[in-house]
Amino acid sequence: MNEYHAPLRDMRFVLDELAGMAELAGLPGYEEATPDLIEAVLGEAGKLASEVLAPLNQVGDRERLTFENGVVRMPPGFTEAYATFVEGGWGSLAADPEYGGQGLPWTLAIAVQEIWNSANLSFALGPVLTQSTVEVLQTHGTAEQKATYLPKLISGIWAGTMNLTEPQAGSDVGALKTRAQRAGDHYLIRGQKIFITWGEHDCAENIVHMVLARTPDGPPGTKGLSLFIVPKFLPRADGTLGERNDLRCVSLEDKLGIHASPTCVMAYGDSGGAIGYLMGAENQGMACMFTMMNNARVLIGLEGLAIGERAYQAARDYARERVQSTALGVRDGGLVPIIRHPDVRRMLMTMRALNEAMRGLLYTAAAALDTAKRHPDETARAHAQARIDLLTPVVKAWLTDSGCEVASLGVQVHGGMGYIEETGAAQYYRDVRIAPIYEGTNGIQALDLLTRKLLRDRGAAAKTFLAEIAASLPELGGDGLGVALGPALANLADTTDWLLETGARDLTRAAAGATPYLRLFGTVTGAWLLARGAAAAARRLANGGEEDRDFLEAKIVTARFYLANILPRAAAEAAAVTQGADSTLALDEAQF
Amino acid sequence: MNEYHAPLRDMRFVLDELAGMAELAGLPGYEEATPDLIEAVLGEAGKLASEVLAPLNQVGDRERLTFENGVVRMPPGFTEAYATFVEGGWGSLAADPEYGGQGLPWTLAIAVQEIWNSANLSFALGPVLTQSTVEVLQTHGTAEQKATYLPKLISGIWAGTMNLTEPQAGSDVGALKTRAQRAGDHYLIRGQKIFITWGEHDCAENIVHMVLARTPDGPPGTKGLSLFIVPKFLPRADGTLGERNDLRCVSLEDKLGIHASPTCVMAYGDSGGAIGYLMGAENQGMACMFTMMNNARVLIGLEGLAIGERAYQAARDYARERVQSTALGVRDGGLVPIIRHPDVRRMLMTMRALNEAMRGLLYTAAAALDTAKRHPDETARAHAQARIDLLTPVVKAWLTDSGCEVASLGVQVHGGMGYIEETGAAQYYRDVRIAPIYEGTNGIQALDLLTRKLLRDRGAAAKTFLAEIAASLPELGGDGLGVALGPALANLADTTDWLLETGARDLTRAAAGATPYLRLFGTVTGAWLLARGAAAAARRLANGGEEDRDFLEAKIVTARFYLANILPRAAAEAAAVTQGADSTLALDEAQF
Repeated sequence: MNEYHAPLRDMRFVLDELAGMAELAGLPGYEEATPDLIEAVLGEAGKLASEVLAPLNQVGDRERLTFENGVVRMPPGFTEAYATFVEGGWGSLAADPEYGGQGLPWTLAIAVQEIWNSANLSFALGPVLTQSTVEVLQTHGTAEQKATYLPKLISGIWAGTMNLTEPQAGSDVGALKTRAQRAGDHYLIRGQKIFITWGEHDCAENIVHMVLARTPDGPPGTKGLSLFIVPKFLPRADGTLGERNDLRCVSLEDKLGIHASPTCVMAYGDSGGAIGYLMGAENQGMACMFTMMNNARVLIGLEGLAIGERAYQAARDYARERVQSTALGVRDGGLVPIIRHPDVRRMLMTMRALNEAMRGLLYTAAAALDTAKRHPDETARAHAQARIDLLTPVVKAWLTDSGCEVASLGVQVHGGMGYIEETGAAQYYRDVRIAPIYEGTNGIQALDLLTRKLLRDRGAAAKTFLAEIAASLPELGGDGLGVALGPALANLADTTDWLLETGARDLTRAAAGATPYLRLFGTVTGAWLLARGAAAAARRLANGGEEDRDFLEAKIVTARFYLANILPRAAAEAAAVTQGADSTLALDEAQF
Repeated sequence: MNEYHAPLRDMRFVLDELAGMAELAGLPGYEEATPDLIEAVLGEAGKLASEVLAPLNQVGDRERLTFENGVVRMPPGFTEAYATFVEGGWGSLAADPEYGGQGLPWTLAIAVQEIWNSANLSFALGPVLTQSTVEVLQTHGTAEQKATYLPKLISGIWAGTMNLTEPQAGSDVGALKTRAQRAGDHYLIRGQKIFITWGEHDCAENIVHMVLARTPDGPPGTKGLSLFIVPKFLPRADGTLGERNDLRCVSLEDKLGIHASPTCVMAYGDSGGAIGYLMGAENQGMACMFTMMNNARVLIGLEGLAIGERAYQAARDYARERVQSTALGVRDGGLVPIIRHPDVRRMLMTMRALNEAMRGLLYTAAAALDTAKRHPDETARAHAQARIDLLTPVVKAWLTDSGCEVASLGVQVHGGMGYIEETGAAQYYRDVRIAPIYEGTNGIQALDLLTRKLLRDRGAAAKTFLAEIAASLPELGGDGLGVALGPALANLADTTDWLLETGARDLTRAAAGATPYLRLFGTVTGAWLLARGAAAAARRLANGGEEDRDFLEAKIVTARFYLANILPRAAAEAAAVTQGADSTLALDEAQF
């Protein structure tokens, strides 16, 4: 079984050097986020992850869930681990202090969530869903709803879920058919939802379902959707649990991975109607959902990094232990650990470099989120909001695609053992494969980047971002990294212009390049962040930094590796956008 | 459940236009390979695949194998399917007529094997292993050994296996410890082998294990290895089955995929010694193994294509059926099948294009194999042998990497359903992931390409190949494809020169780029073959070809897609070779 150790030093490095943790701690309300506290929080989270959650990861994969008469039982150890998690207050880090939260920066909470997701993706999904529920309630709930649900959800005593998908309504949410009929102070919900993550389980005493449904007189499509709070047990006025609501888990999906995360088919209202309480106003369901979805997309992107990190640790440890063959060209020498073989090293370096780029992108996106929420200056808030809006689809899609690439390399480093489930490498490969799919497929993310983030403001946010990168290049030049970044950045800028022009007159043609454009965006942004990290490492080395010499030098080498080995993909991605559309769209459907 | 239909028209197109089937049929001994016979063989194979093997694919994945007291039982339906396969003589297509084979071209047999592998990879592995055993026996067996084993193995009444790997000896075969002690006319074998594909099963009445072992007085390393025939039941002089040999399956591995293919830990000689018969001479084991391994590597490469094709068919069918959202930019139009969405189309085109490039590369490599065996002219044979030697690692590694990419896209096209095992897309993704690992990891293939195929002859075979591509460009120019290929070909040539120069003085540095070099080689070769196919399609269209217009135009479009969307990767791969080595090798082991 693979151990997991939170990469605390790497995390701190990115928090401090790229995400600007010190500045975030200066924002109103974040004063408690001192370096000591951050150190303590990350350290404690790392301990819980290593000791409790990581050892359950393979158990959950193997033992899986049991389902009987609508009851879902988690694999051995999961409910106990959940209780420990709740006791430690881990779900409440970034939540509102008014309802029992700790009010810490999102950026810190995201770093902590990287730890949970690395340790045990199936487990971590539960709290992620609860957190999404909390966000919707905080933004759109009435005072009464907040008082009833937030303290329990923030503590984790109750869990939350999101119910969008139906068999005919996946990417096309507007096609959903679940009905909500007004009945006095509440609504009666009737319909079936699928792919409901943590839809039923035995970890929390109550489960609060957020259900998207259609009222009888609403307009068709997404504009007629409303969001409802549909608790498993109806809370009484005194806060205790009352009646069981008319909803149940009908079945569990048999999935490629995340076997310990219950993916439920949920039936609402089979016995007349599940009681639901309207969030916000009727027909405002999509607005509520978007509140949740944007943050959730960042958190799904995080899964790519988290599994990438776990896969890297396992592959690195294996490569150090596994002895095979002599060093290349040395016929009669001793056998060496495979980490000395150049091709294994290439795989490990690729894994490292992608992970570090992912972490840089994720944490800086999180910092923009915090700035957008808390900065005293309105312009700074607007700037940060535009940045997080722009980066959200990139974080979601580029990190999850990269996470799949890293996990696959992790299998490969293990050789034949990588294909044997016992090793654990195969589980990471299976588990992470969901991330490019759910919470909006990566194709949907690419379309979001193109249409909502690029075309809608005519490239304003993107160009601001690119100008910021361009302006920073001279500072990165010391080690030649800024110079190396130049052509790829120009490629991204040219491709952005091409899409703005093309998209305005032929959206389909532009959309044919949406995915390679998003990858181009991620590839270049990752390079920029690694180069910035390398520059910071060089500064620290120049100012002493002796005790961290190995670590800091590795940052510089990893950035150089990325620029030489991964960044060249940018030109290929750009070419696919600007030259690939015609042939992408040329075949008739019958010709496939 | 996904249906499978052998892509007979595509296969014929590649056989005729790229592999030169007509010329192969002119080689001595291949006269029977008339167009009618080829049509009939492929058609019948397709029927068996669709009706018998493909429907068992998911059954095998779910029901898996049972193991009790050393006995392995195949999943329901597999032994019956195996009997049907044997009855049809499907294992004997390319085998020696002297021993009951049909003496048909390898190229045809490979096309047929694509069909078996697409339909049911776990099933197809059995006959692949038997075929490898047959090859070793044909090349290195005594007349008596051939008479005893070949007819039974060629018919498939007996099955064969290859036993190389031991826990400490994976890529480093020379580290194996299994001992062989001479005892009169035979040897006593003692040791444990792991990862033995189809090591035990209930399909065939006998299993002939080819076991690599070490005689007491042999030199260390690979030079001291000998190969032994170690049958499960010892054949009597009259050909009937005699005593049970001292060997057994100890356990089955729990794997990521190919769940219906028994991957066995085999114990030899627990009760004194398994009786084994020497193949060839003592210490010639590696030579025997290489006979087998080269062909086997081509057949493993084939798995990448085969699963790629299966995944494509499933994704295409799903994309035609699944209705979701309106067409892009059409707000109030009707809902459309997702095949109309540009990003889905990009995924399907990528799958198609990679599959067609894989098929082109595989079948032309097979044609070189046939030419090397049968051409009356020695120079032509030598030229073809150099070609197949050069292409073997590329076929193995590039096809299996591409197969993984295609299978992953297949999951993605299915959206959320792709992650649900019921759909089948996830099985392809799991199954194909073994192919980059076994029969020499793709890293080993890259090193083989660099050291044995490039450096050893100082680039002679590679340069001949590149010159052939360059010479063909003018013919491909009609549609602009030859012109588009030029820069990538130059990239490949330059990178080849760089490796020849660098490898001569710093092998480790060259080896750091071995994998991207192999990919570069595959990417460019694939483009060339698609461009040749497009030129052939254009010729056919110019000469009438009306009834095939849709098909032929699709070939041209697919080639254009590849050149615009996939070929640009070549520059990135070249850059990684020539600029990436320093940073790949720069970290100390402790810095990982």
